[in-house]
Amino acid sequence: MAITVVGSVAFDSIETPAGRRERCLGGAATHFSLAASFFCDVRVIAVVGEDFGPEQEAVFKARDIDIRGIERAKGKSFFWAGSYLDNLNEAKTQATELNVFGSFQPKIPEAYRDSEFLFLANIDPVLQRHVREAMPKAKLVAGDTMNYWIKDHRPALLEVLKGLDILLINDTETRMLADKSNLVQAARSVLTMGPRMLVVKHGEYGATAFHRATPDGLGAKTFRAPALPLEEVVDPTGAGDSFAGGFFGYLAAQPELTPGSFRRAMFYGSVMGSFAVERFGTERLQKLTHQEIEERFLLFRELTHLD
Amino acid sequence: MAITVVGSVAFDSIETPAGRRERCLGGAATHFSLAASFFCDVRVIAVVGEDFGPEQEAVFKARDIDIRGIERAKGKSFFWAGSYLDNLNEAKTQATELNVFGSFQPKIPEAYRDSEFLFLANIDPVLQRHVREAMPKAKLVAGDTMNYWIKDHRPALLEVLKGLDILLINDTETRMLADKSNLVQAARSVLTMGPRMLVVKHGEYGATAFHRATPDGLGAKTFRAPALPLEEVVDPTGAGDSFAGGFFGYLAAQPELTPGSFRRAMFYGSVMGSFAVERFGTERLQKLTHQEIEERFLLFRELTHLD
Repeated sequence: MAITVVGSVAFDSIETPAGRRERCLGGAATHFSLAASFFCDVRVIAVVGEDFGPEQEAVFKARDIDIRGIERAKGKSFFWAGSYLDNLNEAKTQATELNVFGSFQPKIPEAYRDSEFLFLANIDPVLQRHVREAMPKAKLVAGDTMNYWIKDHRPALLEVLKGLDILLINDTETRMLADKSNLVQAARSVLTMGPRMLVVKHGEYGATAFHRATPDGLGAKTFRAPALPLEEVVDPTGAGDSFAGGFFGYLAAQPELTPGSFRRAMFYGSVMGSFAVERFGTERLQKLTHQEIEERFLLFRELTHLD
Repeated sequence: MAITVVGSVAFDSIETPAGRRERCLGGAATHFSLAASFFCDVRVIAVVGEDFGPEQEAVFKARDIDIRGIERAKGKSFFWAGSYLDNLNEAKTQATELNVFGSFQPKIPEAYRDSEFLFLANIDPVLQRHVREAMPKAKLVAGDTMNYWIKDHRPALLEVLKGLDILLINDTETRMLADKSNLVQAARSVLTMGPRMLVVKHGEYGATAFHRATPDGLGAKTFRAPALPLEEVVDPTGAGDSFAGGFFGYLAAQPELTPGSFRRAMFYGSVMGSFAVERFGTERLQKLTHQEIEERFLLFRELTHLD
């Protein structure tokens, strides 16, 4: 099965206690697609500027990611600069330059239209909805969002949520979206907005999957996957997108979706997130092997299972 | 097997978003011993004042807890008042009156001296050490502490740590004790101070057990137990002590201690902590049944296990 993902492909300048990197390849769709590419075919829809060259292209091609949907526009690519010097759990944004992303109108290659899995990474909900409607064959649709859209673009976001099967956001975003301080009550409220499954990402404490009871195998039991206690977090950028890529990539690779698939998908999400933070930007995922993924999956199992 | 626990038996006035209670029975040794009493015999060492009457005594007796080591002194019992109105994860202390606890000199009944399990709840490390030395037959010793002792009584605390097998503290205390911001590095550092096992309590995110590799079965694998995602937290007071009681009580009930026992003990700790917060003070643990405990254990298993 193939996933189509729409989202940002960008350049990031990042500062953490471990050092700094200038203009490394980043963006939600980049991290997501690299992580998912270890499980299934991935097709990207994005826009980049003239600064996106063969070096960046090669990162996607090395993982066999289909980038025919990455449009080249005049100007510069989306650029983000952030620092984690004060707090590894929350970036302090120093610069956001939308550049070619400011007038992004997603164009979907004909070859992408049979994708049964669709991931709407964190972008303007108006664009998320446009892509969702243009991909009627998608049988499982997941997405992400952020505080900015929740706060200032709520009506558009609520429209997107109606078309989502799975929403992946963090604790703060869940509470903000539901306007409830208790996480379980907030999750229950979000599950009335459209998604049948809500994955709440807790950063260094893992993630929890909440389900709306449905007869179709999405399952109804709450499930908590841990994060790996790590000796060093080099760069948290892209951890959530890598989680989403591992999670959704694993699902797309299954012959059928059972409650057990969703549990294992949560573990693979945590696995990919744990690798992502070990190096700056996409460095770690670029060099990852399937064997390392399987070994870490077993480590997560051992970390949580009684027997 | 029997546990002897030394710590506070107190009156608490508590305010939370769910309401308030005046002068309900509290104290670390109270919460700990109620939780542990579902697994093994429990003997308490503490001091109370003249305000501790038959009503309070009955709470311990109903759970068959040995209170011959609770000394009655002239004056009032330890009193604490706190509020969780702003943040359910952290109490704002409004009053602390040591009263008879200010001159507490633990006296150990002869009948307690064969206890093979000893728990040093959060009190002055000088007293913790005194009790530890007076109980040479204790084969497994666990303890708790808090930021105040870590910051202002470090030398005395370091002496206590040398005599502990297991230390149970929270994230912030672990980082403070080790003076390291990364939790794994901090845990590793704490494990050089004496304890062979460190249980770091993460509040609503569960707890992680870190081990020093030893040949005696304490095991060397890091293990993470979840907390139950709860719809309503009525009163977080005593959650950590109830975790410790479930954890250590389960261990004391085992014919032998294997790595698997420690994993299950982490789950029973989480189970008892999850019940404790459902009502004010000791209300929930007083009414708990073994069947409810086993049912919740299975719920925790389901929450975390792939199959």
